[in-house]
Amino acid sequence: MINNMDVIKRIKSIQRFLETNNLDGFIQPRSDSYLGEYVPLSDSRLEWISGFSGSAGEILILRNTAILFVDSRYTIQAVNETINTDIKVVLSSEESLTDYIENNLKKLKNIAFDPWLHSLSKIKFLLNVGKKNNLIFTSLKQNPIDLIWVSNREDAPKTEIKKHIKKYSGISASIKIKKLCLILKSFNADSYIISQPDAIAWLLNIRGADLKHTPIILTRAIIFKNQKLFLFIDKSRINSEISNYFIKECIDVKIYPENKLLEVINKIAKNKNKILIDPNTTSYVLAHEILKKDNNNIIEQNCPIELMKAIKNKTEIEGSVIAHKKDGVALSKFLYWIYNSKNTRNSEILFSNKIDQLRSQQKNFICTSFETISGYGSNGAIVHYRVTNQTSKRIKGNSLYLCDSGGQYLEGTTDVTRTIAIGKPSIQMKKHFTIVLKAHIALASAIFPYGTTGNELDLLTRSPLWKNAMNYGHGTGHGVGSCLSVHEGPHRISKGSFIILEPGMVTSNEPGFYLENKYGIRIENLMVVTKLNDKKNNNMLCFKTLTLAPIDINLINYTLLSGEEIRWINNYNSSVYNNISINLEINEKKWLKKVCKPFIISTH
Amino acid sequence: MINNMDVIKRIKSIQRFLETNNLDGFIQPRSDSYLGEYVPLSDSRLEWISGFSGSAGEILILRNTAILFVDSRYTIQAVNETINTDIKVVLSSEESLTDYIENNLKKLKNIAFDPWLHSLSKIKFLLNVGKKNNLIFTSLKQNPIDLIWVSNREDAPKTEIKKHIKKYSGISASIKIKKLCLILKSFNADSYIISQPDAIAWLLNIRGADLKHTPIILTRAIIFKNQKLFLFIDKSRINSEISNYFIKECIDVKIYPENKLLEVINKIAKNKNKILIDPNTTSYVLAHEILKKDNNNIIEQNCPIELMKAIKNKTEIEGSVIAHKKDGVALSKFLYWIYNSKNTRNSEILFSNKIDQLRSQQKNFICTSFETISGYGSNGAIVHYRVTNQTSKRIKGNSLYLCDSGGQYLEGTTDVTRTIAIGKPSIQMKKHFTIVLKAHIALASAIFPYGTTGNELDLLTRSPLWKNAMNYGHGTGHGVGSCLSVHEGPHRISKGSFIILEPGMVTSNEPGFYLENKYGIRIENLMVVTKLNDKKNNNMLCFKTLTLAPIDINLINYTLLSGEEIRWINNYNSSVYNNISINLEINEKKWLKKVCKPFIISTH
Repeated sequence: MINNMDVIKRIKSIQRFLETNNLDGFIQPRSDSYLGEYVPLSDSRLEWISGFSGSAGEILILRNTAILFVDSRYTIQAVNETINTDIKVVLSSEESLTDYIENNLKKLKNIAFDPWLHSLSKIKFLLNVGKKNNLIFTSLKQNPIDLIWVSNREDAPKTEIKKHIKKYSGISASIKIKKLCLILKSFNADSYIISQPDAIAWLLNIRGADLKHTPIILTRAIIFKNQKLFLFIDKSRINSEISNYFIKECIDVKIYPENKLLEVINKIAKNKNKILIDPNTTSYVLAHEILKKDNNNIIEQNCPIELMKAIKNKTEIEGSVIAHKKDGVALSKFLYWIYNSKNTRNSEILFSNKIDQLRSQQKNFICTSFETISGYGSNGAIVHYRVTNQTSKRIKGNSLYLCDSGGQYLEGTTDVTRTIAIGKPSIQMKKHFTIVLKAHIALASAIFPYGTTGNELDLLTRSPLWKNAMNYGHGTGHGVGSCLSVHEGPHRISKGSFIILEPGMVTSNEPGFYLENKYGIRIENLMVVTKLNDKKNNNMLCFKTLTLAPIDINLINYTLLSGEEIRWINNYNSSVYNNISINLEINEKKWLKKVCKPFIISTH
Repeated sequence: MINNMDVIKRIKSIQRFLETNNLDGFIQPRSDSYLGEYVPLSDSRLEWISGFSGSAGEILILRNTAILFVDSRYTIQAVNETINTDIKVVLSSEESLTDYIENNLKKLKNIAFDPWLHSLSKIKFLLNVGKKNNLIFTSLKQNPIDLIWVSNREDAPKTEIKKHIKKYSGISASIKIKKLCLILKSFNADSYIISQPDAIAWLLNIRGADLKHTPIILTRAIIFKNQKLFLFIDKSRINSEISNYFIKECIDVKIYPENKLLEVINKIAKNKNKILIDPNTTSYVLAHEILKKDNNNIIEQNCPIELMKAIKNKTEIEGSVIAHKKDGVALSKFLYWIYNSKNTRNSEILFSNKIDQLRSQQKNFICTSFETISGYGSNGAIVHYRVTNQTSKRIKGNSLYLCDSGGQYLEGTTDVTRTIAIGKPSIQMKKHFTIVLKAHIALASAIFPYGTTGNELDLLTRSPLWKNAMNYGHGTGHGVGSCLSVHEGPHRISKGSFIILEPGMVTSNEPGFYLENKYGIRIENLMVVTKLNDKKNNNMLCFKTLTLAPIDINLINYTLLSGEEIRWINNYNSSVYNNISINLEINEKKWLKKVCKPFIISTH
């Protein structure tokens, strides 16, 4: 944790920078220049300047104050982490950074930003706000935080590139590149600036270890319609195996040092090249390099790799099945251990370490796919809870324990949440759990035509909760990569998501319910969109559940379930036993059989 | 039915007109100049020229051929009705009129249309097609059909205007006008051309009998932001009671003869007035009268009355409840009669006449709200079936009878479908009926937040069908007027309908299943969107079902229903009995009690 005195000093330094440069404010977001979800320690500028460690937010530092804008997940955490620093925490849904600026136009005439840390869309929006209000947004050559954050700053990650072999990727990089270039041609684009590292990892079938939870390397690339590719990365990170791989695979890669990126873009833009960029994921500075040459040279489109990457091929789907079996073994061992350990000092941290350790013992495990959420009782009700030594609760008494965790394996990425009863569950706990289970089953068992989007399926999932005056404040499902980001687009199961679900897309199914200060419930499995194999029901799609871990039958009130729902849960837990038991010890196996036992339905 | 020889002669006359005027083709749609769903006999030009009597379609008459474009509901009927006429019938989803024109550009250089019979949007689209293809679309001063259709043509309907008193309308016309003018101001419009007769009927609280199934008068109006209104109608149709009503209500109405419309629009357009029109419901000729003056004078917006009209007020909702009780009495008597009549010559026509007659005996009945659909066995599988002497089946043996009917009452409009077993239903019939019932219940019992649209609820409704390899080729629900059109917008329960459902909106709930050549099933009730009265479940909406007629429990396979679903059907049929029985004869009452008897759920 960062010392408050340090934060005060650091903010003061930035304020001095503002004065010297005749600026009124500076915006620092959470993201680094890759604009992704995870940021290496070396680029955690928001945390370093404010003490706030959440995964989303931005600070506006003004001459004599600083305002941290966060979403509802992080208000409490942000207040705690910035205590005694004079940083004001604001809930962005009530007043966004833009709202704040517009409400304080008298004091604000010139706001600076680091053009690497914001997308083209975001800056376009800000410039428009500026235009309307006679306000200047200044793009800085250097981030002022980098000027003062010199000591005790980690080096940027520089892990070696590794091949992600065809056994796991399924399709060779050269074929992926060919397909991508056909798409570029359909957009009349001569080249495409790939600014998302996971898109590059997928395209080239390479992986790395630059981030804690995502096996990628932080790099950017430019691909040309003739299949030539420029990769911007330190040469030292490419060993001879990788060089040979590129040659053998006929991938025409030219390596440039990272700091040549703007220069190269500038040169390409000069040549009247039509350059495609994704305005939502590309740093403003890169787009600006093209725009300043010629406005007409830019083609704004969603990243064309995103959809290709989201639709998993046969090998990736089979890999995911394997990864989920291993994950299910780790989870089953974990649950067995919880119920059978004689430990009297059980705690959230102990549990969290245990599942991470069991998962790490599985073959081809790379890293956890995100920081494990391990919350007991009231901590389970905090949706983005991360246990620390300070917050870790003792696990005893009668309540619910929620564990959301996942792993990166060579074969695929997992993400699973189980909620279990500790001690004796109350009638209300069972009711809430059963209703969440109904929602989970509604989505898992849905059959739907091609053309259906996450928008419609979100309502189907929430419907049983709404009937019981329940709901959850997060989405129902997100895409998941294949040995890549645990959150990926373009599809979601969520109100307002209008991307068509395609066979091969993987999505989470994670309805929940959170009773503040009491307990949280979430039941999360990953599923893959699949063609329904039924001649009578042509052209329909369904979900095949990938996750294999027992759902706690002690928490089910069967009288609230329909026959169809009971059959689903019976089948699901049976399939967990059938797939997992072979890799368990004898005692674990016995236990698993018991907790997966089907419920006998009485007939009318 | 129209004689085929007549059709051939009529088409030839139009073809001579084309030659004389150097035109290659003429387009005649189904609609009249009001562009509504129903057309008076005097304006049924498509039927007169082609013999085709369906409710949608258009004919393209070329120099030596004629092509009738219809949708999938009408292909069989169109072929039958145009037999031996040389008219070619084309399914418009396979080749639309525009596709046809684009596929035959060599022969087609100049196509004519009647500018009163097409909307601004439609003609804009055609003109664009013309521009791309070097093709002229000519707007005619007079419809060539009107030149030759002189004998045996009915007069245009000229029924008297009647007041729709506040007891039924709930809100005075002057308040509606005030609200509308506020909306006009928000669009910066000086005036609005109201081209939909039902919008005028709603706004002025007037009704008429110009159409067979909708109690309105065919008229147009222009309203100005100062609340002045021009009504285009023959003075003879306004009696002193109505004149006095306008004065008493402080409605500033100026009456113009219908044929002054273009002249008046021309004058307004000259004065730099900003005129709002709905491009989808306003005849091209009216928009053109403005556009030829000044392009900038036109504001294109969806009819602002449509949403106001769709959200029913308290009086209208209470009126609908009353109308549905009367409708339920007629329907219950009808069903009782079916089961208990000793008639051995039962037929679709006899049944159709019986329900129409029973409905007409109810107080404040005006007319049927559409032509009754009365289909037995395979005829029930034809979604838009209209029984004729030729098609009417004898009703005997073991199959399903489907009856979709509705009434216009002073208190409101009804639309209801019941499917009942005749003889002994098969296991398959019961399964299909029960699955359709599950879909109906899914929608009827949904609870959802403000912001939900018909798009999402459509999936919720179809979900049980999809799980059983079933579906239906029509929408799930449509808006319904209050003593107005039985189909009204802007909302629908349908894929692709993104209008937010507001409390007070009425919608049908009509999932179905159609087994070609065997039988059809549809269960249709009307429902009103209502705020959920539950302090624990804040700001949620639900549906309150309005229709009251027993759902055939003989067709239910209860083992396919959940406890929740069984409770819904038990409650629904009980509420039918409780609301309807008081107005039935003793035998009918006894029978209704029996068919509304709740099913006893065995507990687990």
